[in-house]
Formats: sequence, structure tokens, C-alpha cells
Amino acid sequence: MPPQTPYETAISDLVVANRILAAEGVLDGFGHVSMRDPRDGACYLMSRSLAPALVTAADILQHDLDNHAVHDQGHSLYYERWIHGEIYKARGDVNAIVHSHSPTVVPFASTKAPLRPILHNASFLGFGTPVFEIRNFIPNSDLMISTAALGKALADALGPTAEVVLLRGHGNVVVGPSIRVAVFRAYYTEINARQQLNAMILGPNDVVYMNAGECETTDKIMQAVAGRPWDLWKRKVRREMRRAEIEDKS
Amino acid sequence: MPPQTPYETAISDLVVANRILAAEGVLDGFGHVSMRDPRDGACYLMSRSLAPALVTAADILQHDLDNHAVHDQGHSLYYERWIHGEIYKARGDVNAIVHSHSPTVVPFASTKAPLRPILHNASFLGFGTPVFEIRNFIPNSDLMISTAALGKALADALGPTAEVVLLRGHGNVVVGPSIRVAVFRAYYTEINARQQLNAMILGPNDVVYMNAGECETTDKIMQAVAGRPWDLWKRKVRREMRRAEIEDKS
Amino acid sequence: MPPQTPYETAISDLVVANRILAAEGVLDGFGHVSMRDPRDGACYLMSRSLAPALVTAADILQHDLDNHAVHDQGHSLYYERWIHGEIYKARGDVNAIVHSHSPTVVPFASTKAPLRPILHNASFLGFGTPVFEIRNFIPNSDLMISTAALGKALADALGPTAEVVLLRGHGNVVVGPSIRVAVFRAYYTEINARQQLNAMILGPNDVVYMNAGECETTDKIMQAVAGRPWDLWKRKVRREMRRAEIEDKS
Amino acid sequence: MPPQTPYETAISDLVVANRILAAEGVLDGFGHVSMRDPRDGACYLMSRSLAPALVTAADILQHDLDNHAVHDQGHSLYYERWIHGEIYKARGDVNAIVHSHSPTVVPFASTKAPLRPILHNASFLGFGTPVFEIRNFIPNSDLMISTAALGKALADALGPTAEVVLLRGHGNVVVGPSIRVAVFRAYYTEINARQQLNAMILGPNDVVYMNAGECETTDKIMQAVAGRPWDLWKRKVRREMRRAEIEDKS
Repeated sequence: MPPQTPYETAISDLVVANRILAAEGVLDGFGHVSMRDPRDGACYLMSRSLAPALVTAADILQHDLDNHAVHDQGHSLYYERWIHGEIYKARGDVNAIVHSHSPTVVPFASTKAPLRPILHNASFLGFGTPVFEIRNFIPNSDLMISTAALGKALADALGPTAEVVLLRGHGNVVVGPSIRVAVFRAYYTEINARQQLNAMILGPNDVVYMNAGECETTDKIMQAVAGRPWDLWKRKVRREMRRAEIEDKS
Repeated sequence: MPPQTPYETAISDLVVANRILAAEGVLDGFGHVSMRDPRDGACYLMSRSLAPALVTAADILQHDLDNHAVHDQGHSLYYERWIHGEIYKARGDVNAIVHSHSPTVVPFASTKAPLRPILHNASFLGFGTPVFEIRNFIPNSDLMISTAALGKALADALGPTAEVVLLRGHGNVVVGPSIRVAVFRAYYTEINARQQLNAMILGPNDVVYMNAGECETTDKIMQAVAGRPWDLWKRKVRREMRRAEIEDKS
Repeated sequence: MPPQTPYETAISDLVVANRILAAEGVLDGFGHVSMRDPRDGACYLMSRSLAPALVTAADILQHDLDNHAVHDQGHSLYYERWIHGEIYKARGDVNAIVHSHSPTVVPFASTKAPLRPILHNASFLGFGTPVFEIRNFIPNSDLMISTAALGKALADALGPTAEVVLLRGHGNVVVGPSIRVAVFRAYYTEINARQQLNAMILGPNDVVYMNAGECETTDKIMQAVAGRPWDLWKRKVRREMRRAEIEDKS
Repeated sequence: MPPQTPYETAISDLVVANRILAAEGVLDGFGHVSMRDPRDGACYLMSRSLAPALVTAADILQHDLDNHAVHDQGHSLYYERWIHGEIYKARGDVNAIVHSHSPTVVPFASTKAPLRPILHNASFLGFGTPVFEIRNFIPNSDLMISTAALGKALADALGPTAEVVLLRGHGNVVVGPSIRVAVFRAYYTEINARQQLNAMILGPNDVVYMNAGECETTDKIMQAVAGRPWDLWKRKVRREMRRAEIEDKS
């Protein structure tokens, strides 16, 4: 029987989102995924501190926008949860956030080469791909967004329209109006990075990127079809989860 | 018991083709594969709008060359089905078409570097690898072939002899006289792209490509042996399909 | 119970070698592996024409050095079997041969960048990596070694000491004194190609390759330890074979 | 029931470490992992000579710091075990060592491009990434650390503070205060190498690396969280081990 309430659906989707992004190589042992709480927009749902591939429904905790677990159960929380609260505060249009160390995006975060849309699925990159340089705020840091002030600075760097912000030496944050769209975008940010890197090898000075008008038009379509890969990925991770469950019992 | 009629064989082959290209990384959640209908050359067979890895026999619909489902059952159809009808109209020699976002081909579609045959299996690239630039037809588009006019323009770009056409910012379309040859070509288009990219790193100015005579000779042989990898891939996807079926039941 | 006679061991090893090289991505649907017949050095053992990943003991045929099946059973034979007979004739030290389209080696075959040993496991590359250009023998060919004359020309290109010869636009041939060593070398030829490509990106003019003395010393050790990865790979393919057998029965 | 004594835990962890690094592509058929013996700091634990993916608890032998098996049971030992004894002698802070041929690190070992920290997880690279050139000690060697003198020279190259030393034409050695941290570092050395290579393609002259202060701060955090990916990887290899066990019995 499928989940019944919007909250139950959200929990289920959030578990699946964690598993999808781990299975597709966007997340490794680190990173996290959150959703705005459908019961209360001033809260968000996210796992306790755990490798994304291991997240289950029981691990999801309600956080307020100051990044406290609402019903504190003594669980340790993600060290970088400040990313989430500050972006949800600043961006009313955002209902889901992925923070990853997506491997091919890091090189773009650490050079002057801007990440730009080369593949239609990644049209949202046309709305901006700012790079957050933590050194401008703290010298000799651990590069992590571990305070409210850093979370706020990161949200400022993301700004009002970008859907992705890169973190130098660290990773990226992708946002979306729904969990499906955020997962879609996190995946295609990595794919676009690989394709752009290859294009820059083929012809550093003659890559044709999508222009602003194309990005505007295409992103609408992509949001509309984001459910298609979601359904495919979900089926795959469901099988993996069932197999693991059976094996862990045996 | 094996399928009996040419139509039943076609349906079975088309399902397998979808699964092969998804398993081999040519197709992801998007893209589509079609075959000319063996019962009526003025129609083609293709799945309803669905991720290729999920296509089953029950999803295959007969489309006419104007890209309508012949027996309209209210299913949603692929948004870019116009690719198929217009190419089948223009090219009597074509009996199967693959549209993919094959990852290493996109960089060739978005730079001036022409995709050229470096591997004997990809000799068909010697017959031309035109790039379709949708901006020449529509500004600020979603890059997709979503009208008959765009389908026609794409078929014109493919022309009378090429077996591949690249779509800037988007992907490619590969054609063949049979589903086996089209799948073979879609696979080796991706493989050739990877090898050519690497060759261009090793020696940008001294890559030796296959010449026209070699391509002519080699393509004949490759068409003759395209069944060998097909049999291998088919066995693999059959196992995957059976495993998924068992797991989904349990 | 393990195979008993040297011939039975050879058949078993040859099946395993095919499966290993397919599983490790050295062979795809094409390519072939042979061993000199332990019962008669003027013959060799090789599968009938079949994708390497599907080869079983029942598919292995004895070929004479003129590349005829000794006990002709009407099976179709590999189109390029001439590679094998001519090399066995020319090189008494060679007891096993792998012909593959190993993906990262093709770019070296089609540019002026010589494949050179950068990794100790690939020290045998120090004995030469000639490139065979079929255009010097036949214009407008299908690039394949499909006659005795081409087989002879390829064996000449390999020469008396090299363990690898590259075929422009096509692939490579690796030889060894035993099937384990030939498989080891085919695998590490691919690995070395990837690492050399990356090194040439990092510093095109300052890559330190192994020198002749190092290659001489190291190849002896590598031949002595070639059984270690063989045992590992064998265990893996045995499991795959058993799993496929069970699934194909169910 | 979990292991009880520190020694039993060590054995279990060491088996898991071997399997993790093989599963994650850091180790192939070669390489080895050791831990300082928790019962006696003047000894270390390491497998007999065996492919890492096959190591079981029964294969672990106690070695003294002169690299003899303490209870000699006639097993053959790793040819390069000298790496371990000499580093444990020189570095009291080191309790675990990984020697691998991690594929993307070799190109850095064989060019003048220094491996540098581009990803926060690899902050330990900021403590130095010296390259050991065996030619400075032995001409025409097999590149391997096969004597106490070479082990000593390698330990000298590593020096008092670096956590990684690269071996030209061969591989690398990573050290840590615990097996979890050493495994974490071996994994992220490979990941960093891939990301740095890509960054050097994007902008050879403008890559922003982590600075000394950032590395100092970040490494502390990374050591604290190294258990998170360990738990994830361990769960995965446990399942693989159980599956293999079942299959090998059937």
C-alpha cells in the first residue's frame, strides 16, 4: 500500500532521493538531501548524520530553519545542516536541496572555468553557477558550512535565481521546487560537467553553450519530465533496498 | 517458444533494443528506439512515452509516419516522435532509428570538432556526421524536435547517405537498415567518440582516421557481424529482465 | 574435480581467459584468445566464431597453423584467425595470443604517440609497441587481418621481441609464453594506456617511462606473479558462469 | 556476535579494509594493507601474499618490524613487505599502511605535476606528496621495494609528516593513525587525483588548491568522520562476502 499523507509521501521520497543519488554516484559516503516539510514550511526534513546510501525512514528528522532537530532525540545531526535552513529562509521557491561532492563538479569549483549548460537536461545551469569561496569569510577553515553565518553567506552566493552554487575545494548545492526536480538537477549537473570538460578538450574556444532564451524555455520542459528518470531510478533503488534487506536478514 | 510472426519478432527485438541501449549507457532515462513496422512500411513501432529501460512489449504502439498512434489508446507519446516519422519518410533504406543523449557524443555536437571514424566498428561515421543546429530554425527553443517541421529539418540535415546526425546541445540520431545494425551503430558511435577524444588528446594534429574507401568496405562487414554483439547483449538483458521480474513479484 | 590432462587444463584455462578479458573490459563482443595446443605445438586452440563472453569448452576447436579447423565440424571460424597461425609460426616462444579492441589502446594505434611503459605491471611494453598500418599493404581494406598474407605481415610487424603490436583503426594483439601471462599483459596494456594518457595530460614533455633495464628486470617478476590476478579474476568469472547457468535454467 | 578483543577487532577490520579497497578500485590483484599489532607495537598484521580481494582472517600473519612472519608457517609473504616494517619503525604515529597501484595516482608519480589537495576530503595531501625515484638507489630495478634498504629509503622519502608517498612507475603508499583513516586516505588520494587531473585540463594555471592552514584544520575533521564511509563500505563488502560464501558452497 502506498504512503497516504503528504508527509508520508515526503518521507518515502526523501529516502528514495538519498538512495538514488548514492546509486548514481552523485553522493558518496557524504552529502545530504532535504525537503521542506509539507506540514510546515518553516521546517525541513533531513536524515540524522548518516551516509546517504544508508538512510531509512526512521532516520529522517524534522529540523527547524535554524537547523535544530525539532523533537531532539539526541541524534547527531549533519555538520553542514546550516546550508539547508539558510537557503529555505532565503528562497521561498525552494522545496528541496541536495548537497554533494559530485566528482566532476569539484574541478569547476576550483578553477576559473565556469560551469555552463551544454546539455538540454542541464538548462537550469543557465540561471547562474556562482562559486562560493569560503576564504573570503574565514581563513584556514575546514571548508565546511558549519555555522549559520556561513550558511547565510552561501545562500547569498546562490542568490535569488541560481539553482546551483559551487563550493571551492568541496562540492556543490543544488536546489529545486520539488524533490524530483532537485534530484534531476543534481544528477544532470554532474553529467553536464563531464560533457563540458570533454567539449573544452575538443575545442576550448568554440564550445556552443545554451543561451539564456533556450535555458528559460528548456527548464520548464525539464521540470515537467523530471518524473521519468525518477521513476526509473526509484525502481532500481527499490530493488536494491529489498535485496539488501533480504541479505541482511539471512 | 520463440516469437512466430515477423511482427512478434519485431516487438521482441524492439524491447530488447531498448534494454540493451539502456544497459550499455547509450540511453539514460530519456531517448527512444523505433522500427519500421514489418506489416506496413508506412508505419513504425515505438514505445509510448517511457524510460527505455522500462519498456515492455505491452508499451509498444504502432505510429503512422505523421507520428500519430494508429490505435489511439490515450497513452502519452514521445515528445520528439517527429524525428522518427520524418526520417522514415525521407529514407526508404532506414528500418530502425535510435535517438539518444549518448554522453560522449554531445561534446562533438557542441564544438567544431567533427566526429570521425577512428575505430573499424564505427566505419559508418565515414558516411557523414552532420550537426543539426536548431537555432537556425527557432530561437530560444527547448532544443527538442517537437514538430513535424523540425523533424523534416532534421531529416534534411541527415541527408541521403549519413547514418548519424548530431543535435547541438542535445544528443544524436542513428539509423540503420535493421534494428540490430541501428543498435550496433548507436553503441559504436559512443565508443568511437570516446576513442577519438582520447586520440585528440594524444596528438591533436596527427590522428589517422579511416578513409572513405576503408569505411565503404568495412561497413559491409560490420553490418554482417552486427548480430554477434546483439546476441551477447540480448542474453545479458534477458537475465536482467528475468531477475527484475522475479524480484518485483517477491 | 579439477581437469586432469594438460589438454583439459588448457581448454578450461582458455574458457576462463575469454571470460576474464570480457569481464575486465578488454574484449567486447569481438576479439579472440588462443593457446598453442599442449598436445601438438603445430596446432592451436581457439573458439569457433563467437563473442568471447559466451565461449564454453564445447566451442573450442583445434586449428592448424594455416588456420583451418583440424576436425572440420562446419562451424564458422573467426574471420581474423590468420593472426594466430602466423604468429605461432614465427614466434616459438609464444604460447598464447589475445586479439582485442581494448578501448584505450586504439587512440595510441591511430596517432604518433607511442605506447610506452609507465606502470611496472606493463614492463613488457618496453620490448616494443609497433603499429601495423594495413594501408601499406591494402588500400581501402576493412582493416581486418583476413588473409594469410596479412597475418604474415602482422607477425613481421610484431617482430622477434615485441609482446604487443597495435593495429591502426582497429585494436591490438598481445602475446605471451602462457595463457596467464598473455591475459595479464592484455589487461595491463589497457591499464597502462589509460595511465599514460593521463600522464601526457599532466606533463606532455616530462613523463618518466621505464627504461630498458627496468623493463627487462621487471618483466621477469611480472611473469612470475601473473597467477595472482588470474586466480582472483578466475574466481569472479566462475561465480558469474555459475550464476548465469542457474538463471538460464530457471 | 562482534569480535571481542582488540586483536580480534583488528583482524576483522584488516580483512574488511582489504575488501573495501579492492571493491572501490584502489587495489587490483596487487597491493597490501597492514595494521600495527594492538597486542605489540613492535609487530604488524598483514595477509600472506594474496590478492587483497581474497584475504580472509585465516590469511593474516603477525610480522615483526624486520618483516619476518613471527610464527613462520611456510606461507609466502608479500614481496614488498619491507615498506611496512620500515615505516612502522620510523613513524610512531602510524598504525596502518596501504600500498596500492591506485590508477590515477601513477600518472602523478611519473610526471613533474605534484599531487595537491583540491578536495577537502584529501586535505592530508597538504602535508606533502613526495615522489620516490628508485633509480636514485638502484639502476635497472624491478621498481619494487624488495629489501630493507629500499624500505628504509622509502620511509625517508615519506619523512616525518607526509601521509602519502608516490612511487614512480609503480604506485603509492598511504599511512594513518588507524585503519579507518588509512583506508579513507587511500580512497580519497585516488579521488583527488582524478579531480586534480580534470582541474588541470580546465585551467592548468588557475587551479585553487587548499592552503596549509585549511589542510591542517580540515584533516582533523576528516579523521573524525572517517568512520562514516567506512561503515557504508563495510556493509557493502560484508554483503559481497556473504554472497560469495553462499555461491562458493552451492
